[in-house]
Amino acid sequence: MTPRVKEILSWYGSDSPGTLTNLARLLNHGRLGGTGKLVILPVDQGFEHGPARSFAANPPAYDPLYHFGLAIEAGCNAFAAPLGMLEEGAREYAGDIPLILKVNNSAVLSAEGDPTEALTSTVSDALRLGCVAVGFTIYPGSAHQFEMFSQVREVAQEAKRAGLAVVIWSYPRGSALSKEGETAIDVVGYAAQIAAQLGAHIIKVKLPTDHLELPDAKKVYLDKKIPIATPAERVKHILDCAFAGRRIVIFSGGAAVFDDNKLLEEIRGIEAGGGFGSIIGRNSFQRSKPEALKMLGEVMDIYAGKAK
Amino acid sequence: MTPRVKEILSWYGSDSPGTLTNLARLLNHGRLGGTGKLVILPVDQGFEHGPARSFAANPPAYDPLYHFGLAIEAGCNAFAAPLGMLEEGAREYAGDIPLILKVNNSAVLSAEGDPTEALTSTVSDALRLGCVAVGFTIYPGSAHQFEMFSQVREVAQEAKRAGLAVVIWSYPRGSALSKEGETAIDVVGYAAQIAAQLGAHIIKVKLPTDHLELPDAKKVYLDKKIPIATPAERVKHILDCAFAGRRIVIFSGGAAVFDDNKLLEEIRGIEAGGGFGSIIGRNSFQRSKPEALKMLGEVMDIYAGKAK
Amino acid sequence: MTPRVKEILSWYGSDSPGTLTNLARLLNHGRLGGTGKLVILPVDQGFEHGPARSFAANPPAYDPLYHFGLAIEAGCNAFAAPLGMLEEGAREYAGDIPLILKVNNSAVLSAEGDPTEALTSTVSDALRLGCVAVGFTIYPGSAHQFEMFSQVREVAQEAKRAGLAVVIWSYPRGSALSKEGETAIDVVGYAAQIAAQLGAHIIKVKLPTDHLELPDAKKVYLDKKIPIATPAERVKHILDCAFAGRRIVIFSGGAAVFDDNKLLEEIRGIEAGGGFGSIIGRNSFQRSKPEALKMLGEVMDIYAGKAK
Amino acid sequence: MTPRVKEILSWYGSDSPGTLTNLARLLNHGRLGGTGKLVILPVDQGFEHGPARSFAANPPAYDPLYHFGLAIEAGCNAFAAPLGMLEEGAREYAGDIPLILKVNNSAVLSAEGDPTEALTSTVSDALRLGCVAVGFTIYPGSAHQFEMFSQVREVAQEAKRAGLAVVIWSYPRGSALSKEGETAIDVVGYAAQIAAQLGAHIIKVKLPTDHLELPDAKKVYLDKKIPIATPAERVKHILDCAFAGRRIVIFSGGAAVFDDNKLLEEIRGIEAGGGFGSIIGRNSFQRSKPEALKMLGEVMDIYAGKAK
Amino acid sequence: MTPRVKEILSWYGSDSPGTLTNLARLLNHGRLGGTGKLVILPVDQGFEHGPARSFAANPPAYDPLYHFGLAIEAGCNAFAAPLGMLEEGAREYAGDIPLILKVNNSAVLSAEGDPTEALTSTVSDALRLGCVAVGFTIYPGSAHQFEMFSQVREVAQEAKRAGLAVVIWSYPRGSALSKEGETAIDVVGYAAQIAAQLGAHIIKVKLPTDHLELPDAKKVYLDKKIPIATPAERVKHILDCAFAGRRIVIFSGGAAVFDDNKLLEEIRGIEAGGGFGSIIGRNSFQRSKPEALKMLGEVMDIYAGKAK
Repeated sequence: MTPRVKEILSWYGSDSPGTLTNLARLLNHGRLGGTGKLVILPVDQGFEHGPARSFAANPPAYDPLYHFGLAIEAGCNAFAAPLGMLEEGAREYAGDIPLILKVNNSAVLSAEGDPTEALTSTVSDALRLGCVAVGFTIYPGSAHQFEMFSQVREVAQEAKRAGLAVVIWSYPRGSALSKEGETAIDVVGYAAQIAAQLGAHIIKVKLPTDHLELPDAKKVYLDKKIPIATPAERVKHILDCAFAGRRIVIFSGGAAVFDDNKLLEEIRGIEAGGGFGSIIGRNSFQRSKPEALKMLGEVMDIYAGKAK
Repeated sequence: MTPRVKEILSWYGSDSPGTLTNLARLLNHGRLGGTGKLVILPVDQGFEHGPARSFAANPPAYDPLYHFGLAIEAGCNAFAAPLGMLEEGAREYAGDIPLILKVNNSAVLSAEGDPTEALTSTVSDALRLGCVAVGFTIYPGSAHQFEMFSQVREVAQEAKRAGLAVVIWSYPRGSALSKEGETAIDVVGYAAQIAAQLGAHIIKVKLPTDHLELPDAKKVYLDKKIPIATPAERVKHILDCAFAGRRIVIFSGGAAVFDDNKLLEEIRGIEAGGGFGSIIGRNSFQRSKPEALKMLGEVMDIYAGKAK
Repeated sequence: MTPRVKEILSWYGSDSPGTLTNLARLLNHGRLGGTGKLVILPVDQGFEHGPARSFAANPPAYDPLYHFGLAIEAGCNAFAAPLGMLEEGAREYAGDIPLILKVNNSAVLSAEGDPTEALTSTVSDALRLGCVAVGFTIYPGSAHQFEMFSQVREVAQEAKRAGLAVVIWSYPRGSALSKEGETAIDVVGYAAQIAAQLGAHIIKVKLPTDHLELPDAKKVYLDKKIPIATPAERVKHILDCAFAGRRIVIFSGGAAVFDDNKLLEEIRGIEAGGGFGSIIGRNSFQRSKPEALKMLGEVMDIYAGKAK
Repeated sequence: MTPRVKEILSWYGSDSPGTLTNLARLLNHGRLGGTGKLVILPVDQGFEHGPARSFAANPPAYDPLYHFGLAIEAGCNAFAAPLGMLEEGAREYAGDIPLILKVNNSAVLSAEGDPTEALTSTVSDALRLGCVAVGFTIYPGSAHQFEMFSQVREVAQEAKRAGLAVVIWSYPRGSALSKEGETAIDVVGYAAQIAAQLGAHIIKVKLPTDHLELPDAKKVYLDKKIPIATPAERVKHILDCAFAGRRIVIFSGGAAVFDDNKLLEEIRGIEAGGGFGSIIGRNSFQRSKPEALKMLGEVMDIYAGKAK
Repeated sequence: MTPRVKEILSWYGSDSPGTLTNLARLLNHGRLGGTGKLVILPVDQGFEHGPARSFAANPPAYDPLYHFGLAIEAGCNAFAAPLGMLEEGAREYAGDIPLILKVNNSAVLSAEGDPTEALTSTVSDALRLGCVAVGFTIYPGSAHQFEMFSQVREVAQEAKRAGLAVVIWSYPRGSALSKEGETAIDVVGYAAQIAAQLGAHIIKVKLPTDHLELPDAKKVYLDKKIPIATPAERVKHILDCAFAGRRIVIFSGGAAVFDDNKLLEEIRGIEAGGGFGSIIGRNSFQRSKPEALKMLGEVMDIYAGKAK
């Protein structure tokens, strides 16, 4: 166990040795193993956006096994996916890579107003598939946010009892927020705080902009001159919002597929701000495997301190 | 066990031997036993559309025992029906044909907007009736879709623990979809993906048209020139959408009763595209038994490679 | 056990000996015992319509014990009532007559739109009161129909496990149906089918008219020339709709209190159509006991084949 | 055990000796012990209307212990209150007076339409506090009535299994009823019937007026010339509506604080009609203790047959 | 055990020795230990208002450990916070200060009408974190108030069985109340009563104004000339509303950050009225630690009778 991983584990003083063991597995796996940094491959877009939109750009990606293989070859810390996808490869790749079961999912097919999710799998499923963690998406700001918080309560408690870690994807969204507000620094910071308060071990948020959304918060940001001008400052602030850096927070760039220079620029910002890493889905699997391995390699080099 | 059935079972690496045994029973029964192809007789129309609309065209079909007999004589792989119908014949025909208990049902009597279903029977019922699987209908695109997904979570988990297989009828429907969109290739592909992600062993969808419904998806289909011009191409695409062909997907022609030439034409398309078979309800029991046996025989001949 | 009762029991091949025993108790009790015909006294109108409207016409009927006595003296097959009423007399009349506990109830006091019910007692209550069956009302066509179907699922499964029989009162009603449609032949047939599919042992519907309500169904009735002109033809058709006569279906005349000639005329129609009997509430207890005994005697004579 | 109490207990033939023992404790306690009559002190107004409105007229009444003392000194049969109030004095007065735990409560603070209640305590609470019964308020006529009926089902079943008695406060109220209709004789009779059907041992209703509210019922009252002109006739009719007098029905005068002559006049009416007693809250504790003791003494004298 | 603490414990005669032990731990800890007075540090604002709004004024406060340290150094009786925050420091500070787990939480992100909360942690969480109590916020006056009352029922029962104490934050709020009404003396008194009736051991309300909100209550306050002119009188009245002073009631000043003179003035009012203490969040942690320690010291001096 490296000193850095030991230090990170020390922040989770209320967890059982079982949960710490699974957290350590995540932190010690892959190319970034032991550095305290993480790059995770998440593939729930087939469920959330539909299969063709997700996989037609790189047809081998229709096959769940492809993603297991990609995550392993790239040296990711973990692979996260919904039930069906993990069921497909969990035996073939048993023990090859830490798995995170996404236990709730949305789908863009229906025309509801405020976003919500369905519980689609269970802690028992995670255990029988050999996972190290369960993942849960919440939409702070949605009219349904309290239902989702309460579902986390049930699932997270059960997961912790079973020695699993808990990952929360915290995406502000809902009729009370503007589109721009969904990635506003104050809102993303709030979303990180909520995930931390709900007991997440790992928190996933979008890289925030310097927009300020909530009037009461805006006043404080301006009054106190909280530095949010650069990506690094914003990342640093988000870490503050998640228990002053004592929770693992990782970032994604969101829906848009940008050029790699821009992506790596963002990674450098996350790294400079002290962020714990990235979760990179579409940018990984919506290109050929060699290209994906190259890009993920460059990202990991930055986090590993081998590149600037 | 034929090599093809062995291969199919190998895709379900996360399932218990109990569930694999029941899947094998389905695949090894009837005239198509061992080929990896399936023809299933489903009879839930009495519940879903009413008895006279379903059975008056062939009055012996009012009797549940008739359908057990038809499925057995025709050499179908399985017979699927709601609780009451299976209760009626399960003892008399015990061991004669694999049974699938439809555990939820709709009914056209009420005037609600978006479609939903009632849970009408249980995994315990399936076990006491000697079934090999439970069947569940979901309506992706309905405002109630998330409730149905969560019900699948409960029922499927319980079924798998009991060593049963899980069949999902995935019918896109709801206020967010046009009538044409319900059988659009992008929407049906999405519906197949959702069923696969929810952990279905067997997925039932309607044979799709080449219509494209969802704007974001349409762009991808056109950009990537996904081939969807012929029935065979569309069937092949649907298989891709269900884990690149590593899930059993079967097809139905939907509500309309067409002439047999058209029906067989469709079967040839399914076969050509690599589809795993058909589920044929009204076209089977809304004609006399001899006619039904003839038609089902011709369908099976196509799947068995004995006819073109 | 008479051959007819043996035959009827043979239709319930999926039930435990415990449930068959209780069904046999119902079929073998009273003046029609062993004939396969039933006349049941139901008294839930105090709950559903209010006490004065129900009992003021014959004040002794305010007392629950009166109804136990009436059912026993008349030689009915069973007495059905809500919890409180059965609690009142179950000890005093223990073993004197088969009891059916109505486990859900409505009340006309509130002004809701589509009808629904409250679960008001349990299978445990039925067992401690020595009942042979539980009774459940559903309103197919109501916006709340699916909730009621799911409640049947829970209650019926528990009842069957406890060796009780399940009786379903299936009353089409709701905003999607016209007033006339509630007793339309197609709708009542559908209601009988739903009850059968939900696993009922005994189904209670209203005597239907020759009205056709649902456009899709109407077309089939006319196309196929289903005979529905006479009461006997309609009763025969309802039996078809309930698994081709392999489920016990009994009839009521509904709310109106008509003259006895008309009532007996209806009974003759039910008998001629092969119906299994009647459930006669208000016509029994809203007159003096001697008059009730006379009327019930005449009804039973018709079912027993002793009168025309 | 007096013959009258023995007779009353004989009406509850379906209850366990445990529940009968607790019913007997209620009937045998206090100045009216053994007479079959009851006067109960209920104090849930602090919760339902607020503390100052309830207790400022007699400040010692802010203290829960005051009410225990008042009920004991006055020789009431029982004291009924919500959880917190009983928790306050249950140890100090353990064994001094039968206690009834009000397990649901309303509060006038919010502006909802049809009335409802919250479950606020449990059968387990009743047991640990040494209660003889649980009390439940229902609002027949409310759009929420069915939820409340179903809650009674759960709570009453659990209470009976634990050997407790069940008291139902049945208050018609809701958008389907006029203000006058809430105390109309037909509506109150219906409310008493519903409580009886739900399995109550003791039913509490308001003293009804001769108003007739429900058109269908009104017709019957007029046709059958049901006598409802005097309070005694109306009380007698309410008893009929509660299983022909075979359930304990007690009365309250409702919200208004009237002069004692009018109150005693009402008590005489209840007594003359055969009512089982009174539940007197605000008239008891919104005056000084000496005055309350005097008034309650006079009420009990009437029920005991010592005064006219 | 001091006589005063013994006296306070004597009011909770229905609680188990386990719960009394935990109540005693609260009362006996810190600078006010043994006096019967309490000052509690609550930190749930990160969840309820967002992290920057809560902590930017004093950045070390982003770290949960800061608050443990502050509460301990200041000699508070207890530290109250949501799950994540307690998980952070519970091991490091195990045994150093009594902890209260806030088991429900709101968040200002969504735009719903009447306020509600999500259950976010459990009694099991409280036990594994070594807490002495669970804390629950209710919003009397909200359209959702009954749901919250029923949740208290579940949580409080479970907490008491586990030997924990129950703290209720009772904040009137909702569409039925004016903004001014939220701190009106009649409404706050009602809120205190509801918390007491729900079985709280410790009740937290806002310091009320002399505004009267509810018409029916206003009449009583004026008629009975209830003294509410001074803060001390209002505090005294609130104690009356919580079982005549036999429940621990503590106060907060609410959202506004006022100057210390005004704060200490309020504390003197609470002390003069017999209040049991204060819960001081934002005024404690939104300033530097030395300033906070000074202010809390002055507050405690007043409660300890060492200052005026």
